[in-house]
Amino acid sequence: MALSRTSHIVTAYGEELDQLADDLARMGGLVETQLEKAISAVVRRDASVKPDIKAREVQVNALQVDVERRVLRLFALRQPLATDLRMTISALKVATDLERVGDLAKNIAYRAGDLADYAPVALTQQVERLGAIVIKQLREVLDALSSADVEPAVRVWHSDDEVDERYNTLVREMLMSMTEDSGLVGPGVHILFVAKNLERIGDHATNIAEAVHFMVTASPLVEDAQS
Amino acid sequence: MALSRTSHIVTAYGEELDQLADDLARMGGLVETQLEKAISAVVRRDASVKPDIKAREVQVNALQVDVERRVLRLFALRQPLATDLRMTISALKVATDLERVGDLAKNIAYRAGDLADYAPVALTQQVERLGAIVIKQLREVLDALSSADVEPAVRVWHSDDEVDERYNTLVREMLMSMTEDSGLVGPGVHILFVAKNLERIGDHATNIAEAVHFMVTASPLVEDAQS
Repeated sequence: MALSRTSHIVTAYGEELDQLADDLARMGGLVETQLEKAISAVVRRDASVKPDIKAREVQVNALQVDVERRVLRLFALRQPLATDLRMTISALKVATDLERVGDLAKNIAYRAGDLADYAPVALTQQVERLGAIVIKQLREVLDALSSADVEPAVRVWHSDDEVDERYNTLVREMLMSMTEDSGLVGPGVHILFVAKNLERIGDHATNIAEAVHFMVTASPLVEDAQS
Repeated sequence: MALSRTSHIVTAYGEELDQLADDLARMGGLVETQLEKAISAVVRRDASVKPDIKAREVQVNALQVDVERRVLRLFALRQPLATDLRMTISALKVATDLERVGDLAKNIAYRAGDLADYAPVALTQQVERLGAIVIKQLREVLDALSSADVEPAVRVWHSDDEVDERYNTLVREMLMSMTEDSGLVGPGVHILFVAKNLERIGDHATNIAEAVHFMVTASPLVEDAQS
């Protein structure tokens, strides 16, 4: 794993860092799938996805506990410094963000069940488009993490504006539809919360982008640093 | 600060841990005030609170950066072990939760401005009651943190069920009102998001409770451990 591509000769220490990177990669893969399934469930108003999503959440949570255990062990036994220290701290942060993304994806999937009680809502397509952007963000930032590559991480960080813009448009249009047709209030509120959860997942993708930037460059990714 | 009440004789190391605890206490105080002001602003539908909330958020964010800097420094120069290691890791986690609480409080305050555009909504009182419980949770868990006291932390952890119950009731009633009166769709959605933000702040209070438990006992606070 490039996340742990440091100057270590193959040692037990290097292996421990590799295992940490593997845990994160597995968490990332799981939450990415969670999110794809959740959005697809919302689009199809399909409640049947719940048990699968729940099972995957258990795995994600177990991996987060594992990451925290490994990080504590590394600090206690290896006292990492410089790049390794930043990598270890970043792993802890990224695991927190990924656990939260998994949780938000679960919430989205559960709303699919609620939406199944109503007739289809026209604005679901906009949710699908917003979801596609957020999935892309998540995938790109996870790739940037595993390859320890700053440039794509910064790109993800900037793309958050597009997510916010689309989210705001969706909210505006949904509120208008709900005001005109009271039958849309129930499903509309679920759609609004799904959209909010997607917008939050975008925020977590930018958090991960910041962690990658800090891990590689030792400096924070801030507004001023933008080109 | 009891957070750093360890076996250290007064040393530079002990002072560094004290400063970390002070940062967290200051962050806690700031976000508690943020939350009180935000809820009061929603109840009074008062948009004037925005600049004050924004200024405080800048302070909270600066403190989080400071905590992270101090934690990295401690890891790099002091290689904390046992209690100190758990305390240092917990500080990092609690700072993340407090920064997020500040952010959610800011979102609540901003909704106050949106609500000012509409006539008063009856269900605002329920938001106030939900807010009062969440403020109490936050205050108690911050006290538990600064006194390194597990018992009140566990109590806060259990009280989250009450928050969830009140939140669900509020959502149900708000949806009913919005369906009956389309004039309530706009303010109703803002109230729903305020309630959701409060419920999330309750979740962060339970996260902090878990961090206190782990810091003091070295074991995680899990469902099975409940009495």
